[in-house]
Amino acid sequence: MTEVEPLRFEGGALLVLDQRALPEAERWIRCETVEHVADSIRTLAVRGAPASGMAAAYGMALAEGREEEAAELLRSTRPTAVNLAWALEQCRGADDALAVARRLHREQDEADRRLAGFGAELFETGTRALTHCNAGALATGGYGTAGGVLRAAWESGRLAEVWVDETRPLLQGARLTAWELRRAGIPHRVVADSAAGSLMARGLVDRVVVGADRIAANGDVANKVGTYPLAVLAARHSVPFYVAAPLSTIDLATPDGSSIPIEERDPGEVLEGGDAFNPAFDVTPAELVTAIVTEVGVLEAPYAESIARAIGAAA
Amino acid sequence: MTEVEPLRFEGGALLVLDQRALPEAERWIRCETVEHVADSIRTLAVRGAPASGMAAAYGMALAEGREEEAAELLRSTRPTAVNLAWALEQCRGADDALAVARRLHREQDEADRRLAGFGAELFETGTRALTHCNAGALATGGYGTAGGVLRAAWESGRLAEVWVDETRPLLQGARLTAWELRRAGIPHRVVADSAAGSLMARGLVDRVVVGADRIAANGDVANKVGTYPLAVLAARHSVPFYVAAPLSTIDLATPDGSSIPIEERDPGEVLEGGDAFNPAFDVTPAELVTAIVTEVGVLEAPYAESIARAIGAAA
Repeated sequence: MTEVEPLRFEGGALLVLDQRALPEAERWIRCETVEHVADSIRTLAVRGAPASGMAAAYGMALAEGREEEAAELLRSTRPTAVNLAWALEQCRGADDALAVARRLHREQDEADRRLAGFGAELFETGTRALTHCNAGALATGGYGTAGGVLRAAWESGRLAEVWVDETRPLLQGARLTAWELRRAGIPHRVVADSAAGSLMARGLVDRVVVGADRIAANGDVANKVGTYPLAVLAARHSVPFYVAAPLSTIDLATPDGSSIPIEERDPGEVLEGGDAFNPAFDVTPAELVTAIVTEVGVLEAPYAESIARAIGAAA
Repeated sequence: MTEVEPLRFEGGALLVLDQRALPEAERWIRCETVEHVADSIRTLAVRGAPASGMAAAYGMALAEGREEEAAELLRSTRPTAVNLAWALEQCRGADDALAVARRLHREQDEADRRLAGFGAELFETGTRALTHCNAGALATGGYGTAGGVLRAAWESGRLAEVWVDETRPLLQGARLTAWELRRAGIPHRVVADSAAGSLMARGLVDRVVVGADRIAANGDVANKVGTYPLAVLAARHSVPFYVAAPLSTIDLATPDGSSIPIEERDPGEVLEGGDAFNPAFDVTPAELVTAIVTEVGVLEAPYAESIARAIGAAA
């Protein structure tokens, strides 16, 4: 497939592929200031926990002596994903933020590819996988997390089809994941988010694989709203439920899911001109997660231990 | 509130409030032929299991000597709801189909009001209820089933707020239920269907109440796709899950949910110009249903017995 690249630094500016316009248009936004980068993250021109982190790191390359203020602004754009804070932490005190950003970006791609390989091995031939939101190349700037697992499973002949939750309210599944899968030639069908239960009840789903915005030290997972219901349904139907995420998504400072701030977005995303409520994420308790697929291997319960071990080994 | 009337027979024609145009426009369709009535049901100008049945009964008043063919055409419009077949059965062999239709319509309203009263008693003061799709006056031609329960609970001071699932792909919740609740002055907020899990996990939902398209003899319930996930989540969070439906929705000839035909609608309703799959209903197993609220009282498990008893007593 033609590689999807959601962001690129060139000519002294961060170019962001405007994901709000996909799949209708491939429009690039040129960000020459930290403020513009922050705006691109806040308004979801660039989105996905890892890709938002990469954008923030590149944003630091535009800070020009206002590093502290820039990091504060970028960190404040979105509260749930921890990758933003992580990437900014990596840039802190760097002489050359651009070099750090480029390194993080390259490492993200390498981590994605490693975790995709580990994840694909969890699939059997003929697997029909269901995914939610977008955790593909658009979401990471690399090969994709959950999307990377799907690609690797497809390339190794294990994947039969992907069910794509459309992912209301912003339709990242119908707009972005379907677009990526189409480019990769991977068979897929988009469904209303609420159809996943009936698909599982009919035996049409063999695996669920999703990304993550933040994983707590105990293995609780914050991800796009709608992930938790999928995990509950998967458990009921004995469908393995995998979370694919780089170690940078794990936050040891967050003891469990109840400490993860859940971003509430504009109700207008759900319903224009009416009363609505729009939590953008939910928390899936670790007990419902079959495995967490990372670049250092597949972590299983008890997660407090497997996570601590993985982070320790990688440090 | 101003009563909502989705259909009305006058001047030798069935007038159908076009629910596809709501809430933006209140547009009436004048059906002078059986074919036009069938088309209105198939294309969801009129929808909701009981209201579709009423429309079919009024359609028979336009059959003019072609009763058998007309009943066949009307019955074929939508396969899942049993009320259509039930209403047509009531009209069979009638000298005056219009009189039968008017009687069924009046009885529907009476049944709705009785079941709404029974349902409201299941609510405690301050109840925050969640509902899916639209099972209000628009869906029945009367007072509403699940929507009627909400109205009666509100009028008796028990209801604090309603969470309205937007109900993709056709947004019957966001468009129709929210419209009805607004007219009734009942506080409500629309949410993405996939947010229900996070609302329950946060303790923000005290009751789930939905309608039904067909209830099998064992208590399995077919209803708008997305109902089953709600029932699974409600069970996990010990939130009572109520199905509100008149006895005409119960089909003793359907032994269990596996025998209920599930309508697959145009994938274009989910995603224009892409690969999609669009099952319109799902099946909630009886074990997840706390109670079925009918016009003869509240039925509880074991449903095979309580249903048989209720139908027997009403016969």
